Amino acid sequence: MVDLSALRGVRLTKGHGTQNDFVLLADPDGALALDAATVAAVCDRHAGIGADGLIRAVRSTAVAGTAGAQEAVARGAEWFMDYRNADGSPAEMCGNGIRVFVAYLEAAGLLTAADGAPVAIGTRGGVRQVWRTGDLYTVDMGPWGLPGGPEAVSRGFDVAVQVAGLEGTRAGLRVAMPNPHAVVALADLEELAAADLGPLVETDPPAPDGVNVELAVPLGETTVDGEAAGVVRMRVQERGVGETRSCGTGTCAVAVALHAWGGPQAPRLWQVLVPGGEVLVRLEEGHALLTGPAELVADVTLR
Amino acid sequence: MVDLSALRGVRLTKGHGTQNDFVLLADPDGALALDAATVAAVCDRHAGIGADGLIRAVRSTAVAGTAGAQEAVARGAEWFMDYRNADGSPAEMCGNGIRVFVAYLEAAGLLTAADGAPVAIGTRGGVRQVWRTGDLYTVDMGPWGLPGGPEAVSRGFDVAVQVAGLEGTRAGLRVAMPNPHAVVALADLEELAAADLGPLVETDPPAPDGVNVELAVPLGETTVDGEAAGVVRMRVQERGVGETRSCGTGTCAVAVALHAWGGPQAPRLWQVLVPGGEVLVRLEEGHALLTGPAELVADVTLR
Repeated sequence: MVDLSALRGVRLTKGHGTQNDFVLLADPDGALALDAATVAAVCDRHAGIGADGLIRAVRSTAVAGTAGAQEAVARGAEWFMDYRNADGSPAEMCGNGIRVFVAYLEAAGLLTAADGAPVAIGTRGGVRQVWRTGDLYTVDMGPWGLPGGPEAVSRGFDVAVQVAGLEGTRAGLRVAMPNPHAVVALADLEELAAADLGPLVETDPPAPDGVNVELAVPLGETTVDGEAAGVVRMRVQERGVGETRSCGTGTCAVAVALHAWGGPQAPRLWQVLVPGGEVLVRLEEGHALLTGPAELVADVTLR
Repeated sequence: MVDLSALRGVRLTKGHGTQNDFVLLADPDGALALDAATVAAVCDRHAGIGADGLIRAVRSTAVAGTAGAQEAVARGAEWFMDYRNADGSPAEMCGNGIRVFVAYLEAAGLLTAADGAPVAIGTRGGVRQVWRTGDLYTVDMGPWGLPGGPEAVSRGFDVAVQVAGLEGTRAGLRVAMPNPHAVVALADLEELAAADLGPLVETDPPAPDGVNVELAVPLGETTVDGEAAGVVRMRVQERGVGETRSCGTGTCAVAVALHAWGGPQAPRLWQVLVPGGEVLVRLEEGHALLTGPAELVADVTLR
């Protein structure tokens, strides 16, 4: 039986970033007892509200025992993004969620972010800087890694990937964001459409802890605010979840792989088209910036 | 782009019946312009609120041009259940939805239903009587039919069904509620769990307009309020939708098939266990009564 009583009377907000969707709530003083069962009940798409995860806005000083909170306090991050997956388990970071989180804080009057001024946000995965430009939000996703090293980059691949609906085995490049990704370039949009991301994608070497798999089709170049940018359309299978409409670290991983494949001349700015919309990924020295929309859809009060 | 502006400021309610879930709204005078795109946007589970369908409460007198509304007015049904599928297309009736609809009317103060007193509700599929007993709601689902006739009943089947995950071809019985169903009895719960209702189930004769397929495992008898009842666990693939957690007409079709297979001595009362909960189906002379819960989960205001 779904029990939502712990959240009765709490004002909830539903929002999404490129259709990665969340239930958000403000609990500044960390007063709310939010167990996994309650989170799962709220995120249940049929018996609850429905979301990919729940995000609690809590002051970093109020969750001292939580991973990442002490760093958040030390680095001046007033707000901590307490993100839980739809099954109730705690999650480290979410590139789409943190944009929606900051939009929520602004709308709730909990944060005044001037256009372009970075705000430090605490997460279990460390402090992230987020800033708004117009109605888009940018998050510094931190450093990326290529677990296969320079050898993998020069060969162009370091993992074999088998995807239902696609013939043969495909060569992919592993990327750490720092969560594990395997990026595969496909020939065209027909191949991309033919892939069946329902069944679990198999990789060689296997990934015992799972891996996010991105299928990407480069589509040439465009101009974004006068700057040349690569364009890529992608689909993603997130580990433990299945195919999703968007994955923040996945979009960054695709940009990293395309840049690695393209060499020094390849764009550092990528317009990444996902099923749920589009984002921009900029590869700066050593770290990736993810820019995208954040939509607050509705306010929700449980009965 | 998802556009929800037509519903901005309208108070919405999310509810479900055995996890068949709906967004409900009151529009007594039929003033709301509710096009398919808006309905689809609200029912989108990631970019909108998310639901299997949207139900508008409108006075029967206010929707004279709608199928079923004139009959509703003539038969004294004050309220009309304007039900739309998640894709925005109009639907005739929904056995789970109409229970939630009446619970919603009561909670909104639009209807005062004494315990056990039938209320006439207009639908595109005709007027239905609904009554509440405690916190359960019963709807008279109307007559059923066995398209194969007495011959099919004496043979026990009139359709061959091929389900992914199950070996061989299974014999099923067609039932009209009046929408088309094919009911297949399986040997045990292991077989039920092994069935893969992702791919479309194939039937012979084929059903060009689609068919709802129910897989059912009879589990003996129980007692409900002192009355003997059969128990059955089922899964369902709804045409045009895929596997769902519950299907009102599907639960009735299963009871009809089990009763036909069991002969005159078989129970007329069935406790039907679906993935989303349980309902009771009573087979009266010529028509089926469906009893089940109706949960109003949350009030929702679009931003």
